[in-house]
Amino acid sequence: MKKIVISTGGGDAPGLNAVIYAVVMASNSRGWEVYGSRQGYLGLLDKDALVRLRPEDVAEITPTGGTILGSTNKGNPFAMPVENLAGEINIRDVSDRIMRNFLRMNFSCHIAVGGDGSLEIAHRFAVEKGMPVIGVPKTIDNDLLATQLTFGFDTAVSTATEALDKLHSTAKSHDRVMVVEVMGRDSGWIALNSGISGGADVILIPEIPFDLDKVCEKINDNELLDKHYDIVVVAEGARAIDHETIYKGDGEIGRSERVLGGIGEWVAKEINKRTGKDTRSLVLGHLQRGGSPTTFDRLLALRFGATAVRLAESENFDQMVALAGDQMCSVPLADAIKSRKKVPLDSDKVLTAREIGICFGG
Amino acid sequence: MKKIVISTGGGDAPGLNAVIYAVVMASNSRGWEVYGSRQGYLGLLDKDALVRLRPEDVAEITPTGGTILGSTNKGNPFAMPVENLAGEINIRDVSDRIMRNFLRMNFSCHIAVGGDGSLEIAHRFAVEKGMPVIGVPKTIDNDLLATQLTFGFDTAVSTATEALDKLHSTAKSHDRVMVVEVMGRDSGWIALNSGISGGADVILIPEIPFDLDKVCEKINDNELLDKHYDIVVVAEGARAIDHETIYKGDGEIGRSERVLGGIGEWVAKEINKRTGKDTRSLVLGHLQRGGSPTTFDRLLALRFGATAVRLAESENFDQMVALAGDQMCSVPLADAIKSRKKVPLDSDKVLTAREIGICFGG
Amino acid sequence: MKKIVISTGGGDAPGLNAVIYAVVMASNSRGWEVYGSRQGYLGLLDKDALVRLRPEDVAEITPTGGTILGSTNKGNPFAMPVENLAGEINIRDVSDRIMRNFLRMNFSCHIAVGGDGSLEIAHRFAVEKGMPVIGVPKTIDNDLLATQLTFGFDTAVSTATEALDKLHSTAKSHDRVMVVEVMGRDSGWIALNSGISGGADVILIPEIPFDLDKVCEKINDNELLDKHYDIVVVAEGARAIDHETIYKGDGEIGRSERVLGGIGEWVAKEINKRTGKDTRSLVLGHLQRGGSPTTFDRLLALRFGATAVRLAESENFDQMVALAGDQMCSVPLADAIKSRKKVPLDSDKVLTAREIGICFGG
Amino acid sequence: MKKIVISTGGGDAPGLNAVIYAVVMASNSRGWEVYGSRQGYLGLLDKDALVRLRPEDVAEITPTGGTILGSTNKGNPFAMPVENLAGEINIRDVSDRIMRNFLRMNFSCHIAVGGDGSLEIAHRFAVEKGMPVIGVPKTIDNDLLATQLTFGFDTAVSTATEALDKLHSTAKSHDRVMVVEVMGRDSGWIALNSGISGGADVILIPEIPFDLDKVCEKINDNELLDKHYDIVVVAEGARAIDHETIYKGDGEIGRSERVLGGIGEWVAKEINKRTGKDTRSLVLGHLQRGGSPTTFDRLLALRFGATAVRLAESENFDQMVALAGDQMCSVPLADAIKSRKKVPLDSDKVLTAREIGICFGG
Repeated sequence: MKKIVISTGGGDAPGLNAVIYAVVMASNSRGWEVYGSRQGYLGLLDKDALVRLRPEDVAEITPTGGTILGSTNKGNPFAMPVENLAGEINIRDVSDRIMRNFLRMNFSCHIAVGGDGSLEIAHRFAVEKGMPVIGVPKTIDNDLLATQLTFGFDTAVSTATEALDKLHSTAKSHDRVMVVEVMGRDSGWIALNSGISGGADVILIPEIPFDLDKVCEKINDNELLDKHYDIVVVAEGARAIDHETIYKGDGEIGRSERVLGGIGEWVAKEINKRTGKDTRSLVLGHLQRGGSPTTFDRLLALRFGATAVRLAESENFDQMVALAGDQMCSVPLADAIKSRKKVPLDSDKVLTAREIGICFGG
Repeated sequence: MKKIVISTGGGDAPGLNAVIYAVVMASNSRGWEVYGSRQGYLGLLDKDALVRLRPEDVAEITPTGGTILGSTNKGNPFAMPVENLAGEINIRDVSDRIMRNFLRMNFSCHIAVGGDGSLEIAHRFAVEKGMPVIGVPKTIDNDLLATQLTFGFDTAVSTATEALDKLHSTAKSHDRVMVVEVMGRDSGWIALNSGISGGADVILIPEIPFDLDKVCEKINDNELLDKHYDIVVVAEGARAIDHETIYKGDGEIGRSERVLGGIGEWVAKEINKRTGKDTRSLVLGHLQRGGSPTTFDRLLALRFGATAVRLAESENFDQMVALAGDQMCSVPLADAIKSRKKVPLDSDKVLTAREIGICFGG
Repeated sequence: MKKIVISTGGGDAPGLNAVIYAVVMASNSRGWEVYGSRQGYLGLLDKDALVRLRPEDVAEITPTGGTILGSTNKGNPFAMPVENLAGEINIRDVSDRIMRNFLRMNFSCHIAVGGDGSLEIAHRFAVEKGMPVIGVPKTIDNDLLATQLTFGFDTAVSTATEALDKLHSTAKSHDRVMVVEVMGRDSGWIALNSGISGGADVILIPEIPFDLDKVCEKINDNELLDKHYDIVVVAEGARAIDHETIYKGDGEIGRSERVLGGIGEWVAKEINKRTGKDTRSLVLGHLQRGGSPTTFDRLLALRFGATAVRLAESENFDQMVALAGDQMCSVPLADAIKSRKKVPLDSDKVLTAREIGICFGG
Repeated sequence: MKKIVISTGGGDAPGLNAVIYAVVMASNSRGWEVYGSRQGYLGLLDKDALVRLRPEDVAEITPTGGTILGSTNKGNPFAMPVENLAGEINIRDVSDRIMRNFLRMNFSCHIAVGGDGSLEIAHRFAVEKGMPVIGVPKTIDNDLLATQLTFGFDTAVSTATEALDKLHSTAKSHDRVMVVEVMGRDSGWIALNSGISGGADVILIPEIPFDLDKVCEKINDNELLDKHYDIVVVAEGARAIDHETIYKGDGEIGRSERVLGGIGEWVAKEINKRTGKDTRSLVLGHLQRGGSPTTFDRLLALRFGATAVRLAESENFDQMVALAGDQMCSVPLADAIKSRKKVPLDSDKVLTAREIGICFGG
């Protein structure tokens, strides 16, 4: 009999609960026990945050958003901010305490579901403390190179596409340029996929530094073709070619401010200034993280969870589950956390976008 | 045989096409002809903008957003900005030209679908020019006193509620305060209905000037009850009690700026400052105007359209169609445009909200 | 301090959990306690089926379908089927036992959420046993005369309308007649509202016995107008004028069989026989009962729940909460259970439907 | 300059219009002309059914269901049923006439979008008549071996999953077994994917002949685990192990009758007979073909369309576009039409399903 502990870390993504469901059910069918560590590693520091997960505890969680293991951003165990009685915050390494409790509880394996940050921590536990760890990749941004896709991405793109669908009619009724800023960190996947599917005129992604004059040219061309409205999708990480100018002129568009009006707002103002068209900007923000996972993401997350249990069974640790083609596989965690996946400029998606008339501004 | 001309004016609202559909079909079943005036009154100024609408022209438009009559904000015919060859813009009264064309085309009735602005113009045509006019009320804000409900409102509330549903899981996963700014102009209907249905902790509406300290108290109370995330819905027209201070301190939160970060952003920053909680703000903006109308709005819009045709048949002009209880009725346009509908503070909706623990900040 | 017990009875309807939420929260804000009786009255027979409901027990249940109080069809306490050790089933009156436990538990009020059957039982408890009862009406069929609307109806209509939307394209691509059977028991509300909103060509409702020849005439007329597909919505309770013939010819279309192919299938076969058109039939069935309630139904259900608590506070018993216009009110249970609401043939909805070209077959 | 003619054949699938959009836009960006042949090959027989497709003709069709090229099932040009003046129907080979018109119109390429039937006809035109043909695969059933996925499948699975989501609450509220029959022809892909994502207890697919006793055992096991409701997903092509008995006993469950109550209804009745549980069956039918394509299907369809144009450019004919991993590729039509794709019994999806407790009845 094995005892598994599962944790979820980093920003939430639709499908986290489906991973948990599959881990619990696939373990149960082998006669194993599963425990959930709430709030990242907290369950390995504080017994109150460690919960036994039986099949009845996870019944019907697959279609739900968020994670039943509670809030996820509680800091790095190797450098954890800890508050003392005087209210002072000190940085402490609690990794040994965590490993001790892991052994004391007699756990056979830790399944760590998380983004690159969480997976890196999991890998350190494997290498430095000898913890038997299996990683499950989670990022709505789809920017992990080691897996073809991650769960949460299809849901995020669907939410963005649905928003674009809604904006067409209102943009058209008012002859407006609607600028929509979507997530994606330093990669343009969400912008690219939702922009193509949602009928955008312009898509701006980090991989293609954009020239606003080309964007405005596209908008003016549309006018000549008697199309008086435009949909512009901007990845939060997109930057103009002449980025120095931008930063000098407007300190507000740095990354940290992105949710409260970032690059999208700047683009909207510039387009208005240069074309005279009425513009509006919209930041989809956390809408893209929420909601029930699409059927695609549920299936992927369930497969990831079941595959993680199979790796635990074969004691194939320090690995991350991944999707290759239509197959499940595993890759060493060390490799997985090394590099981000960017939109390849010669991919058929970018080519398709250009051929159907979408402007990238570069 | 009658000849109807229909126009849509002002901001778009889901259901406009359903009104057009019903007007065309209900006229067709009487053997009448219908013409659509594109871009507000433009079809009565320029023949190219006047289109014959037969049943086959409106097939399947009911579920679509926007308006097939094109962009709607083209100015007031009694004071129309007109550009001359030199590029100068002059304000001209083109109402007589419109009325002349109306008579020349032998129209029996003008069905004007629009908000308070458009309905006021329609009423002026009725009174000053003798145009046989019937109004159909359109506002997603539900702020017209003369009708219990308008189409577009249920769709806008649904979009906002769906957004709130999505934000719960992500707010919870990060122990965050999510502040969501919704539309509604000077009334709080969208905020109230979506906030109650979407499980908000706090709803801020123009009808109840809010005290941010009370809002923060609610958030702190939640912490004590072990609920570490909060959903705050803010109507775009909401204002703090001590509004002088706000305006002095922060010139950016005026109405005109609302789409690019208005009261919602201010509230989010203040909550962060006063409670130390991590906050995020989101402006739903034009998402609320777009998309396919809900079944409720379709039915209401179709009934409005058919009722307008019945009024045209009985030559009951200068009236607006309206909903009273579950019945169609009509009210004089003169009365309809007079007053806005505010959320009554003693309504059972507000009472219900308070009883289930929602804080209004006042 | 009051102690409330709440039960849900009969078929499930989207919004039941919202009622429970509002009852718990509105009671909590008064310092009262709430208990839920699982499986109808079972909680008053078996202590294991009685659960304390605190705010934390109902957090986030508003958007969910079904009822947290478990399965609802457990029989009439005045004539309950009870199985003895030998496996024999006897009908027993357990109402006195229920009333005894109600008093022993010191309950102040029973809030009974249910359809006409459940409300009638609640009324008997009020009259015959002196139980302080408040009813909350629940029927997706909208067939209760005493309230303008019930929760669950808007969701059921939305589900049906969405299905009709999906069927248009496929019917059109195949030049087919799609016959869709919807719920509604003996009234045509779901069929009428969804049929109008969903662009049906034909709507068959119990209130208008239909002549299939007229239906086929409409389909043939469409062919002449170059429209080669048709959407026919049939209420499960609809019947042909010449119903004797139908019953003689086909014993299978009685009510009890409706889910496994009832009137819809018969209509599809007859249309095919008489017009030669390719037809398909579809029974939406329980899809209409499921899923997350619409924002409209959530708000209505929450208001019902809060209003029920207000009635409990004023000790206004043997009443049912109801909607009149846009206001909450209450009506005596005795009146509420007396009569069903039929579609009035002279209502503007029926008139609108006819005017926009929809055929009722009569 | 090239002239392309595009046709859509067979049952409709969400995404057809996205393919058309991409073909028109990608051709337009090369300065080519595109014509649409309405109703399969009719546009090459009758000039009225051949329509010029310019960018403005396809604006905003990507999110719509169905096909703008009208109904699709008009028979095989090599054996076309033709009605003479006397009303008699004769089978005629009109393929030469089609090829003559193709040459007369000076077309450079025919892009045929269709299922295995339509693709086989396209291949015959290539081989026997020398038509430059490119195929685009379309089947919601995902049963083509030559491409990893086809558009329409994700939408069909999503619709089915959404239906399963809705049925959970109602099944649970009534302690019922809900049997849901889904599409898929002779393969179980839709059933498998939607069943796993939608939380089914039992999935019956053609690839695994099922033993109803095992299904009933699963249902009884659930009872013991205090789970009193069950969701059973049945592929329309599923068959019991002892199929002889079924066919002998019940002539109605053959394929042709499937829409009007087929294998799903039979399974529901048998489960009721053997377990005594209350059961209901539901046939999703054409709901799965309709509606707006998911973002996944839109993107895939757009990529297919653009890739087809690229093949036309390189004059790489008698090929079908396909998806391999995340890449576009092409395969000879001759190979593509040869074999169907079945669910491999050793795939990780089937394994995952079994591990999380789903019963296949075999």
